[in-house]
Amino acid sequence: MNHVRALSYARAHRPKFVSELKEFLRFPSVSSRSECACDIQRCAQWLAKHLKQIGLARVCIIPTRGNPIVYASWQRAPGRPTLLIYGHYDVLPGEPLREWRTPPFTPTIANNNLYGRGAADDKGQLFSHVKAIESYLKTSSALPVNIKCIFEGEEEIGSPNLASFVTRNKHALRANAAVISDTRMLSSGRPAISYAQRGGLRAEVEVSGPPHELHSGAFGGAVHNPLLALCDIIAGLHDDQGRITIPGFYEDVRVWSENERAHMARAGPSDKDILKDAKVEHGWGETEYSLYERTTIRPDLGVNGILGGHTGSGVKSVIPIRALAKISLRLVPDQNPQRIARLFREHITRITPPTVRATVRTMSPVHPAFVNRKHPAVQAAILAYKNGFGTLPVFVRSGGSIPVAHTFQEILGIPAVLMGFGLPDSHIHGPNEKFHLPTFYKAIETSIWYMAVTSRLRSHARSQQRQKESSL
Amino acid sequence: MNHVRALSYARAHRPKFVSELKEFLRFPSVSSRSECACDIQRCAQWLAKHLKQIGLARVCIIPTRGNPIVYASWQRAPGRPTLLIYGHYDVLPGEPLREWRTPPFTPTIANNNLYGRGAADDKGQLFSHVKAIESYLKTSSALPVNIKCIFEGEEEIGSPNLASFVTRNKHALRANAAVISDTRMLSSGRPAISYAQRGGLRAEVEVSGPPHELHSGAFGGAVHNPLLALCDIIAGLHDDQGRITIPGFYEDVRVWSENERAHMARAGPSDKDILKDAKVEHGWGETEYSLYERTTIRPDLGVNGILGGHTGSGVKSVIPIRALAKISLRLVPDQNPQRIARLFREHITRITPPTVRATVRTMSPVHPAFVNRKHPAVQAAILAYKNGFGTLPVFVRSGGSIPVAHTFQEILGIPAVLMGFGLPDSHIHGPNEKFHLPTFYKAIETSIWYMAVTSRLRSHARSQQRQKESSL
Repeated sequence: MNHVRALSYARAHRPKFVSELKEFLRFPSVSSRSECACDIQRCAQWLAKHLKQIGLARVCIIPTRGNPIVYASWQRAPGRPTLLIYGHYDVLPGEPLREWRTPPFTPTIANNNLYGRGAADDKGQLFSHVKAIESYLKTSSALPVNIKCIFEGEEEIGSPNLASFVTRNKHALRANAAVISDTRMLSSGRPAISYAQRGGLRAEVEVSGPPHELHSGAFGGAVHNPLLALCDIIAGLHDDQGRITIPGFYEDVRVWSENERAHMARAGPSDKDILKDAKVEHGWGETEYSLYERTTIRPDLGVNGILGGHTGSGVKSVIPIRALAKISLRLVPDQNPQRIARLFREHITRITPPTVRATVRTMSPVHPAFVNRKHPAVQAAILAYKNGFGTLPVFVRSGGSIPVAHTFQEILGIPAVLMGFGLPDSHIHGPNEKFHLPTFYKAIETSIWYMAVTSRLRSHARSQQRQKESSL
Repeated sequence: MNHVRALSYARAHRPKFVSELKEFLRFPSVSSRSECACDIQRCAQWLAKHLKQIGLARVCIIPTRGNPIVYASWQRAPGRPTLLIYGHYDVLPGEPLREWRTPPFTPTIANNNLYGRGAADDKGQLFSHVKAIESYLKTSSALPVNIKCIFEGEEEIGSPNLASFVTRNKHALRANAAVISDTRMLSSGRPAISYAQRGGLRAEVEVSGPPHELHSGAFGGAVHNPLLALCDIIAGLHDDQGRITIPGFYEDVRVWSENERAHMARAGPSDKDILKDAKVEHGWGETEYSLYERTTIRPDLGVNGILGGHTGSGVKSVIPIRALAKISLRLVPDQNPQRIARLFREHITRITPPTVRATVRTMSPVHPAFVNRKHPAVQAAILAYKNGFGTLPVFVRSGGSIPVAHTFQEILGIPAVLMGFGLPDSHIHGPNEKFHLPTFYKAIETSIWYMAVTSRLRSHARSQQRQKESSL
């Protein structure tokens, strides 16, 4: 049994795997910063070289209009299904740096965790599959299934070039299922498969006032302060009950059956769990929904950052020229991000007073995504988890957006199986991000099992037709 | 006539004066930044050395708990009045640097203006008196009046150590009037004497949410976003009509007579003037008052800066840990800054929802200040302006705060004559701050004339008693 040898290899090489992951984490492959373009390239090259070393057949770095995609495949299992494994090697910035106990790009091990930006999101999760592949190839020189890996470098900026890449290479990327590991488990002992993700939309609202900074003593009271105006505008986006006030915003929000809500209540985290994860005392938002519902089947509008006026140390009595808010919306079925973008822009225009000017930019529209829990590729994951983690996974919804899940479903017509290995306290996107090493080891074994289990599934006839190495 | 020789010297030495002022402006004597402490010291030393060079009798650098005060005096005119000349050599930071056409601490001349941080506020204005003193001392070896100069280094941070210094040295600082040049004219041809200034209060409101950054996808909708909460709080400080909603805030605001309002309407800038100065199209605030009234006899609450969440380039989907607003209030008679501070703190506590925590700090309380327009030292200024600028000054109110005016009036019992030489477009506190050079020259001549005119005033008996050099 190939998978037994692979599992034994994986167990024997844990220190090597961790040390390689540390190398991977050292690259500050921050996609939102143009000054990191060079690090992105170096990181992609490192990853491609690594994939070659572990024995993948075809490895290439595919340029896009933005950051390159690292592609690798192994298609020497004729008649067997094909898995498309997706991950991203780009990360968010490390800021705020002063809140990290160890530097974000100096991976450090402490208390069974590997600390560093990207440790959990998504380098560590991506690497779990890479190490599972290695475990097969180094022990049996073969995989039980065909594999196509897409590791992109722009997930954290909304994957602007991925959909067109997938569309252009629709036939070459044909597969039976996509595997995406970029979500969270419920806790270190409770694996979860995310079967729904919220969509999203980003927006920037910039309020402009006087063309140059004014002394607030000389003009305060007579000239509208752009920061005051921005606060009014932002405050005007919610009512007292935490409901979003944009007209038409809730029009297409799907009302879920009692059955589905009951399943969610059983399978999902309790209010108490969520508050504990967030380390806050009080929940917020639409009181007629549980916190789990508020973060999954209800939309959200939050402010990720505000910048305006004097923000350095000390004081500066100014009426600033402008104030900027970075906003993110989370959307749910059946909200259409393009329509919401239009409603948002119209609402801001409507509530902006004539004493200032507001400019609204909307970006990165992402549709909400789903997967059918009955699909064989999803069912196979249940068995893989049972073996890898010793327990059955629960099916949960995610509050975040995984644009690529929607992309694969829409363009390739395949289900996206979201096997997440992050933990609620992984501090994804925050300081002191970490990957729980025992979970890393179990993730590798789960991936090994997943390939073993899916190898027994019937490959679709249409896929078999094109099972020969396809050119990308 | 000594003043004739002084005037002639001042006219002959303009290039030298400008070049010396440029030296003065090169020091980044930013009082709000601890890293500038060394520049503050160097600037104070430069100024003290300069005052010695022009011939002032006693010059010393007096340490305080913060930045030193540069003190100089000349008291060899027995029986003549004593003027206390006040200025400040500290400046605000240069930020935002990218909006400066030339670096803030590289003084540059263009179009008859000297550009640089502090050019108008207050190094250039302070220097006008210094050069007037030099013009007398270099031509007659004597001044027509006794002079005591206090040049402090903490005005831009609310003069935290000045009042105690003045209190401790109450007798040594005895004078007939204080001259403060830290205000604005109506335009380059229209000098103004500010006879009233608003008081002030600074506050910082910090809203704290989760103890570490949360992914806005995972928790958005269930955890209160501190930036949203801060915007709600700030928005809750004004009603729809631009009135401040803090209970009791307007209770002590003086209602002015129709006479005073009529004087203001005649003497002060029109709405159109103020909009033109601010370069904005629309006024804002309490519609039942003119813009001039809104900035002088009505209080104001503005936000000078907001900081929270991700403010760098690119996007970061976070619920931030905290959000901070830097707020400044402008107060009018008979508001008491301490009482307003208490009302402000209570109001913030009242409107903060239980889902976040708010911390409020109030700082730099400043009382509103006045001067009696009939005082001989003020009347003398009218004549000095007539000679220096060729036109009579108008009496205006200032929207800003000059804590020292209140300090001199309360502690020393003398009027503060506010002879401002800044212009509405001097960009005080903003980028591209400038001092209009023709106004600089006229300011020097006005100061020369002011000393000449006040020398004829009767020195108060009480002052004469202690006319001998007093030890500080």
